Amino acid sequence: MAQNIYDNSDFFRQYSRLDRSLYGLAGAGEWPSLRSMLPELKGRRIADLGCGFGWFSRWARDQGAQRVLGLDISKNMLDRAIETTCDDGIAYERLDLEQVELAEASFDLAFSSLTLHYIENLAHVVTSVHRALVPGGWFVFSTEHPIYTAPRNPEWIFHKDGHRSWPTDQYLIEGPRVTDWMTKGVIKQHRTLGTIVNLLIRSGFSLAGFEEWGPTEDEVATRPEWLEHRERPMFLLVSARKYSQPIATEAD
Amino acid sequence: MAQNIYDNSDFFRQYSRLDRSLYGLAGAGEWPSLRSMLPELKGRRIADLGCGFGWFSRWARDQGAQRVLGLDISKNMLDRAIETTCDDGIAYERLDLEQVELAEASFDLAFSSLTLHYIENLAHVVTSVHRALVPGGWFVFSTEHPIYTAPRNPEWIFHKDGHRSWPTDQYLIEGPRVTDWMTKGVIKQHRTLGTIVNLLIRSGFSLAGFEEWGPTEDEVATRPEWLEHRERPMFLLVSARKYSQPIATEAD
Repeated sequence: MAQNIYDNSDFFRQYSRLDRSLYGLAGAGEWPSLRSMLPELKGRRIADLGCGFGWFSRWARDQGAQRVLGLDISKNMLDRAIETTCDDGIAYERLDLEQVELAEASFDLAFSSLTLHYIENLAHVVTSVHRALVPGGWFVFSTEHPIYTAPRNPEWIFHKDGHRSWPTDQYLIEGPRVTDWMTKGVIKQHRTLGTIVNLLIRSGFSLAGFEEWGPTEDEVATRPEWLEHRERPMFLLVSARKYSQPIATEAD
Repeated sequence: MAQNIYDNSDFFRQYSRLDRSLYGLAGAGEWPSLRSMLPELKGRRIADLGCGFGWFSRWARDQGAQRVLGLDISKNMLDRAIETTCDDGIAYERLDLEQVELAEASFDLAFSSLTLHYIENLAHVVTSVHRALVPGGWFVFSTEHPIYTAPRNPEWIFHKDGHRSWPTDQYLIEGPRVTDWMTKGVIKQHRTLGTIVNLLIRSGFSLAGFEEWGPTEDEVATRPEWLEHRERPMFLLVSARKYSQPIATEAD
């Protein structure tokens, strides 16, 4: 079972003050990169896994998506999503993604923003998504980068010459990491990039894009507080496609 | 042009004393993982990019490879490879991989062990390899992991409670890194995992396997000096395949 930290009132109050809560997609630094990894959305049937306040679900409909199913574990998040959505093409459902079951071949795109690092049984989510997609369908997601989730003490170390470094350790040791972010005892699941990539490949996905997000030099010029994210990536953005069958080749 | 550090006599003398120089593949911790990513070698035509002392080239012939072309920039390495090889099925050539040109569709497998992090123009190598492979051919390689190459000061930081951490910094800033390893002024090229993966995908490869190598708990029990490599991965191992054409799918 995934921790439902967004229904912790302290956490939710503070999370609601973040740029990405106040301004939606435009307030998320990684959004331009993630958006560029999406296919054309017109006419698509979309599952939004960890839809939060529904920013992506509504945006996808604005882009012409046929219908969107938004799923989230948090009552706080879904209540706000429902309040701020007036669209019969979007359905919200409360659900722990550890238990997700979607109808076979019923979606063209599964999208997930910064949710999968809360999931213990990622294999279940990946195989469920694969089954739910049509052949050629897309799975596009962002998740916290393993360099970001790995450390015992995820705090910058400042060196005498003024530069900072991120204390990477226990990277190969997968499992829960408890941090104090917004509130005490937030549980995230640390997995290596190797585990994430191989899980996708072995489930039948083909990688289409892979980005370790950090701000560009231009972005740092306007948002100097983002400079630290050039030292170590905070987010991983992935685009993968479901291909119907393996390809016979000369070398087989 | 890649730096030819293996023809530096200090470096070469010390490199020659490493387990992987004295005992070949059996002396390389990552070899069992890398071997498991290889296809069956019987009858294959193989390019060994950065063949060094020729350990892999000879092993591949023992596995039934039809012929092996071993390429390396270092005269020191190739002289030793030639001395220790007695096999008409193996040809060695001295070459800077930055300038590699291989005949079209003439190889079933391109292999490269711990060489690509010396290459400035990785795009040239990847597109040359893609062109040189038959449809369905494999590109299997190891390279230093970007977490390992990124830092300004690639030295462990020891904390008061006894644990160690690796100072990840300037990860998103790609380019040369000068370190003192065996000798002063060894130049490696730092690239993000995103760059490496996207270069493969955009060149027409499909990822088949992706491992961030670290020793298992069992391996650490017999080789306690490897424990540190569970804190941060030192090597990246990749297996990729050349598919002949994109697959038409329902969602296109």
